[in-house]
Amino acid sequence: MAEGEFAFIARRLRPLATTRSALDLADDAALLDPPPGRQLVLAKDAMVAGVHFLDDDPPGQIAQKLLRVNLSDLAAMGAAPLGYLLALARPKDLADDWLAAFCAGLAADNAEYQIALFGGDTVATPGPLTLSLTAIGEVPKGAALLRGGARPGDDLWVSGTLGDAALGLKVLRHELEVTADARACLVERYRLPRPRLALGQQLRGIASAAIDISDGLVADLGHVLEVSGVSADLRADALPLSPAARDLPAARDSALAGGDDYELLFTAPPERRGEIEALSRRLELRLTRIGAIRTEPHLHVLDQAGREIPLSKAGWQHF
Amino acid sequence: MAEGEFAFIARRLRPLATTRSALDLADDAALLDPPPGRQLVLAKDAMVAGVHFLDDDPPGQIAQKLLRVNLSDLAAMGAAPLGYLLALARPKDLADDWLAAFCAGLAADNAEYQIALFGGDTVATPGPLTLSLTAIGEVPKGAALLRGGARPGDDLWVSGTLGDAALGLKVLRHELEVTADARACLVERYRLPRPRLALGQQLRGIASAAIDISDGLVADLGHVLEVSGVSADLRADALPLSPAARDLPAARDSALAGGDDYELLFTAPPERRGEIEALSRRLELRLTRIGAIRTEPHLHVLDQAGREIPLSKAGWQHF
Repeated sequence: MAEGEFAFIARRLRPLATTRSALDLADDAALLDPPPGRQLVLAKDAMVAGVHFLDDDPPGQIAQKLLRVNLSDLAAMGAAPLGYLLALARPKDLADDWLAAFCAGLAADNAEYQIALFGGDTVATPGPLTLSLTAIGEVPKGAALLRGGARPGDDLWVSGTLGDAALGLKVLRHELEVTADARACLVERYRLPRPRLALGQQLRGIASAAIDISDGLVADLGHVLEVSGVSADLRADALPLSPAARDLPAARDSALAGGDDYELLFTAPPERRGEIEALSRRLELRLTRIGAIRTEPHLHVLDQAGREIPLSKAGWQHF
Repeated sequence: MAEGEFAFIARRLRPLATTRSALDLADDAALLDPPPGRQLVLAKDAMVAGVHFLDDDPPGQIAQKLLRVNLSDLAAMGAAPLGYLLALARPKDLADDWLAAFCAGLAADNAEYQIALFGGDTVATPGPLTLSLTAIGEVPKGAALLRGGARPGDDLWVSGTLGDAALGLKVLRHELEVTADARACLVERYRLPRPRLALGQQLRGIASAAIDISDGLVADLGHVLEVSGVSADLRADALPLSPAARDLPAARDSALAGGDDYELLFTAPPERRGEIEALSRRLELRLTRIGAIRTEPHLHVLDQAGREIPLSKAGWQHF
């Protein structure tokens, strides 16, 4: 039998609300003392079963992915996370065990990221499980990284490796066969993004613009270019690929156009290269220059010899 | 044909984002400057088509109800609203006209309550339209009204009239026949709650506890009593009924147990009666004493002569 809403809140959610702001989930709303001299950063992403995650994904990892895609939005702004509100529309046949595992995933990430549940809502739905999370973070006033700051001449950087998550999804959908080791790496990248929070915070004052890669490199770069009113050369041969992805035929297309990597794409003037390389060493996180910001009206994707790859050939449009 | 997500955001949502905090919806998250010396109040409620609203409810009113039930949570804490984030999981067949009317409802309430859209997310769903809204408000530090402050001897007060929304729902479901005038009043109360924001803010420093009536008077009073560790006598004959509801056989049961009224239930020491009555006149809003807080372990619902009405007879359990 399914627990009632109040029992579910008391048993599963209240233990996640380890902050005074949550008022033990006993009140109508949460009460947050904004850190003095700071701006709050608010991100809200929704996920639907069968659309944004697979029905047989582990529930704890679904919870972590929901939380982490929002934390990734905070990371892209250079923010440190404080906590989150959760809305959960649950089908009647959703098992208590499933919910327990889902909440255990939230508990694990509460500890990992030193955050807490502030509040939220649980309702019934005749449709698929639908989740919405609002993450709250903070930045020093005026220090947030925005999409609109890229300037001609800036380097274009990306963290980690690209394309793994999209390849992991192909593996889970039986559209791609790989070794057991590669499978483990790629599927984990799809299921369990690693929001680049430390990187985002360290890039404050260094990066001129930043975004997290959720829709795919070309698409998300497009957002930065549009808002900044600039263009870019993107060096397809420079894209960082993981050992698991490197030798797969779809690797480069996936790196250009696959979504769900949740790495940071950022721009910075060339004179900051030394600091960025030092940051890479300090965080033990690969940071790769993959191109440069230009004034030309169109994005150019270039091969090793600097020749333009037509976008239709680059494969991203129909990925 | 349905608009794509980016076109929908640019055309329908960006005009609602009339605040610097929203960064023109061009970034990963919103950036909020907390008003100095204030605490932020965060409420999040979700609504599902067919569960929380009817498929043929006017889309603009669905938007307003979604917003207002969240504003009502802010009102219950004594907060003033600042803005909101919206997550919208839309079925593929949802018409652009429907969304245009939905957004027009938000625009109307943005003007009514002097608030703006901060950000959010739109996703596709194979299920029913599912909405989640996070409302953000502010209160002076330490001034928020909480559920846990009711003390023995306090008066129990309620704003407006009770039971109308539940009767309106019965009318819409063809379970109740009323005159055309009564129908208009009751249905409007169901579809378009009026969050008691001015009242909530004026009750800061006067009320000892407050909650908004969303689940029904007895249920929501139960929340206050539980968190405050007290009990109450509730005078069933004192419940304020509207002219439209007054003569209906279900009126009193509906006032006791019907949800969705979004009036404020609050407690205050008897010595504050004069101020509360003055407040009622100033706001032109009926405020009615409906009982008192006690130390006895159980809630007593009393009739006109002070005799206890057994809760089963009061009808609320199976409403």
